[in-house]
Amino acid sequence: MFENIKPMDIEKRSFAIITELLGDTQLDPENELVIKRVIHTTADFDYVENLVFSPHAVGKGIAALREGCDIVTDTQMAKAGINKTILGRLGGEVHCFMSDPDVAAEAKERGVTRAIVSMERAAQLSRPCVFAIGNAPTALISLHELIEAGKLDPALIIGVPVGFVNVVESKELFLDSPVPHIIARGRKGGSNVAAAICNAMLYQIMR
Amino acid sequence: MFENIKPMDIEKRSFAIITELLGDTQLDPENELVIKRVIHTTADFDYVENLVFSPHAVGKGIAALREGCDIVTDTQMAKAGINKTILGRLGGEVHCFMSDPDVAAEAKERGVTRAIVSMERAAQLSRPCVFAIGNAPTALISLHELIEAGKLDPALIIGVPVGFVNVVESKELFLDSPVPHIIARGRKGGSNVAAAICNAMLYQIMR
Repeated sequence: MFENIKPMDIEKRSFAIITELLGDTQLDPENELVIKRVIHTTADFDYVENLVFSPHAVGKGIAALREGCDIVTDTQMAKAGINKTILGRLGGEVHCFMSDPDVAAEAKERGVTRAIVSMERAAQLSRPCVFAIGNAPTALISLHELIEAGKLDPALIIGVPVGFVNVVESKELFLDSPVPHIIARGRKGGSNVAAAICNAMLYQIMR
Repeated sequence: MFENIKPMDIEKRSFAIITELLGDTQLDPENELVIKRVIHTTADFDYVENLVFSPHAVGKGIAALREGCDIVTDTQMAKAGINKTILGRLGGEVHCFMSDPDVAAEAKERGVTRAIVSMERAAQLSRPCVFAIGNAPTALISLHELIEAGKLDPALIIGVPVGFVNVVESKELFLDSPVPHIIARGRKGGSNVAAAICNAMLYQIMR
């Protein structure tokens, strides 16, 4: 009943099955490992169509991570899922300000989401950052405003919030943006997808 | 373009949209909030069909959590996603043994997955537990063996690993089990789904 397979071979076999199931579907070679890792994480082949990449977004993300850039995310789940061992070896770290007590206090006082305050904090980091947004559309909207106002110049925006209120629209903000971006069009996405995209890039640098 | 909505109202509005999109689909009232929270987490309506509940699994899970049982999970992501504030107020905590150095060492020595060793550790906990498995089919297989051997009597098994190798089969092990279970049939699932199911139960106890 069960396939007898060594622990270290499970992932390789999974990717082989995904490739088989993709059949004749052609993937852009630069984006292929990102798309396949998202499918590996979700078992959802809709991401073949949903994921949109600005020109050389993956290459630019990999270059930034290789130079030791940090990752900012909007959930503790994405932070938990990102491979911090590889990121750390490259000189980077993951930031998530969502649970900081002063972020919560400021958000409550201003009547805005914690995600907005978190992104404003992140814009003050002195290092270049990849933003991996898997949950809050307000984080993406805030990032868009900070970029428009010239207050932020991110290395890459991974915009993959999931949900039903303002999610689709927040992602569409970036579709024509000159900022390097990887967006999951539509309602789907999530912290797991955000982490998977980061890891797909990290694993291409170092395994 | 964006719906103007207060942060505290976003979740309520999301659930209203999910209800609207479900249309005439009838959900078992006992399972409704679990199914809707999984859809809220994934934007994937396949879970209406995929999620299988043993009789009163949700009620039994809620009863166990209310009495202060612990939750054991197979990923740091699920641990990060579970509402530990509510769980703690009820007297429970979340365990994830996957990253423990001695678990990794033992798994390597025996040539088995860390998930198997983690579940064996969990079976030694003296407290009743809900198991929330979102990643490793070998964790589910191990739990099934421990139960069959009379070494484990879990309060509830949430079996929602995602993937392509032994995943579907590992979940089917529980479909006829007398042990209370919530299973996501097929390839889909994930740490986010495991956490969402735990939180759906925790939120029904306390908000």
